[in-house]
Amino acid sequence: MLPGPTNVPERVTKAMITRMINHRGHDFVELYEDIIKKTKHVFQTNGDIVVLSASGTGAVEASVVNLIKKGDKVIIPVNGEFSNRLSQMLELHGANTIKLVTPPGENATFDKVKEAFDNNPDVKAFYVVHNETSTGTQIKYLDKISNLTSRNNCYYIVDSVSLLGGAELPVDKWNIDVCVTGSQKALATPPGISIISVNERTKKYMIDNPPNTMYFNLPRYFHYYSKSKETPFTPSIPILYAYQEALSIILEEGLDKRIKRHKICSDTLYSSMIAMGFKPFAKEEDRSISIIALNYLDGLEDKIFRNTLEKNFKVLVAGGFGDLKGKVFRIGCMGEIGKYHVMRTISSIFSTLNMMGYEINSSSFEIARKKLDELNAI
Amino acid sequence: MLPGPTNVPERVTKAMITRMINHRGHDFVELYEDIIKKTKHVFQTNGDIVVLSASGTGAVEASVVNLIKKGDKVIIPVNGEFSNRLSQMLELHGANTIKLVTPPGENATFDKVKEAFDNNPDVKAFYVVHNETSTGTQIKYLDKISNLTSRNNCYYIVDSVSLLGGAELPVDKWNIDVCVTGSQKALATPPGISIISVNERTKKYMIDNPPNTMYFNLPRYFHYYSKSKETPFTPSIPILYAYQEALSIILEEGLDKRIKRHKICSDTLYSSMIAMGFKPFAKEEDRSISIIALNYLDGLEDKIFRNTLEKNFKVLVAGGFGDLKGKVFRIGCMGEIGKYHVMRTISSIFSTLNMMGYEINSSSFEIARKKLDELNAI
Repeated sequence: MLPGPTNVPERVTKAMITRMINHRGHDFVELYEDIIKKTKHVFQTNGDIVVLSASGTGAVEASVVNLIKKGDKVIIPVNGEFSNRLSQMLELHGANTIKLVTPPGENATFDKVKEAFDNNPDVKAFYVVHNETSTGTQIKYLDKISNLTSRNNCYYIVDSVSLLGGAELPVDKWNIDVCVTGSQKALATPPGISIISVNERTKKYMIDNPPNTMYFNLPRYFHYYSKSKETPFTPSIPILYAYQEALSIILEEGLDKRIKRHKICSDTLYSSMIAMGFKPFAKEEDRSISIIALNYLDGLEDKIFRNTLEKNFKVLVAGGFGDLKGKVFRIGCMGEIGKYHVMRTISSIFSTLNMMGYEINSSSFEIARKKLDELNAI
Repeated sequence: MLPGPTNVPERVTKAMITRMINHRGHDFVELYEDIIKKTKHVFQTNGDIVVLSASGTGAVEASVVNLIKKGDKVIIPVNGEFSNRLSQMLELHGANTIKLVTPPGENATFDKVKEAFDNNPDVKAFYVVHNETSTGTQIKYLDKISNLTSRNNCYYIVDSVSLLGGAELPVDKWNIDVCVTGSQKALATPPGISIISVNERTKKYMIDNPPNTMYFNLPRYFHYYSKSKETPFTPSIPILYAYQEALSIILEEGLDKRIKRHKICSDTLYSSMIAMGFKPFAKEEDRSISIIALNYLDGLEDKIFRNTLEKNFKVLVAGGFGDLKGKVFRIGCMGEIGKYHVMRTISSIFSTLNMMGYEINSSSFEIARKKLDELNAI
């Protein structure tokens, strides 16, 4: 139940067991074309797709180096480790950042974002972390951003490393120019690759203004794909096979159903954990679907709690990140997540608390049972 | 029999079948520490080891961005796709390159390299591709380079992506400051990670002069490792498990024995292919141990030859790269390579040529049988 890497279905794990193929041969072309086609469905885009053999941070950095030039003005909401990391990357690569800083657990409001656009007609790009894994917040007005980006004629880039595939994010419909995600989160694939979508106008800009980099040079990827359906550098073949299988599973389930399943499981976890006495770290309206960050109960020690949960119940949750270490724990609600995972997590946390001497209200079970029944109606 | 990705032992493939672990937890620390320890044996270094989730080109670029500043003078021999790519990377990141260009298939001599050092006392770094995968050449005087780099007080960086683990390359003994390799070549691991060694003085330079990058920022990797034995970004966990198993196999066999095995198999392939009438593309003294590049016989069409070999005998060899497409084919002789692979390759190529109407001298079998007997004496 980690906020990533998440559990991987057995079919996906087994897909890695394959002979080594030539990444300059027909087996690879068949694999990669299928991946690109299925990824377009999941991203809901007709844009170009690039699969990088790198972590999510690598792909996010690729989105920066291919688009941002020295002095470019960029608006970015910042309220946690990953949005902070993204703003650092933008600055490393020369951006003049306008940071909309809010306390961790709380998002910049849409009005604040609009104000920043109003005050900066010359902004080059809006970068946003969809889902802040470190604090369990999710920005819920991404559908409205293109009114601003199109008015200011600027690029719109979404880092949805820890959410795409688990919540609504129709890339083309919402006019997102570049969208980035990781394999090891809601897509339920092992870590090792990350995926970027780039629409036509942004691709043109990148080709006309190539970056001073080789490995993250996206025009090179576009060129190799259009020329021969290959990647410019040797890709992580086993993870690509795993990803292909994961995509097939997503399409078999249906993206809509998958998103509904995530929502029901997430709502269940929030309600049940609140019934046990936990308080979510994030403000109610900003809470993430996929990362449930909870404040520790008074006196509940992070390491003892998580070790007891792991050793006795084989349930892994994550601690806090950076300043939040020891203050919160985080439950991942992504990918394979279903009735079994949710009930087992709730009962294991309940039992752990009991073992540690807490008297806990058992209403959480009834709440969960009822809420999870909604899964049958999807 | 590709020049990479190479065959992977079953033990290595199976090691990927594992539950997802927390890359911020004790399971990961145990895995990563073991990898670092075993990698130091294989690199023969006491320096720092960084494992990047990226292809070899990514790691080579990391060696550039962490060391080279605008205007730095760099000497680099260039005679193929990968050395050319490396010189491009150096230039992208601001280096003033002194390229020792020789025709493909032929290395710059040691005297030419020495002359470049004599003429450029202010050189900052010497970058060299150990083994040029595109043409099948290998530079064989790397042991003597540190006389020059220490005299000129400059850094010595070896890109041994396609050879380390298959030929002698004692990093500390030869005073190599930074050494880079890929997982999918002589280390017989699936693609998806690459490995860099950095010695103490170079590490200090990198920390004092951090690069403007996030994903390839090596000081960040040093910091995370010394603080918590972790990587800064989510690593490719399945490939790390595979790599751990591959390292165990290397240490069980013994590095010396492994290198001798590579040499015997390589000599066998060269002798037998020459006996069949093929001419190696590379100059005799510059021939690579791990990449056997051969000129096509007159009239032998690349695609038909390789397709026949693949379809009928399930043996994959690679075509030529860039300008050499259609003119040469390349046999990888790395990793798992042994009697079985060599004999099967020779007999399959022999039979393919027969099927295509060539009358071929069958002495290659006897040559191979004799030469391969040396494997018993290792």
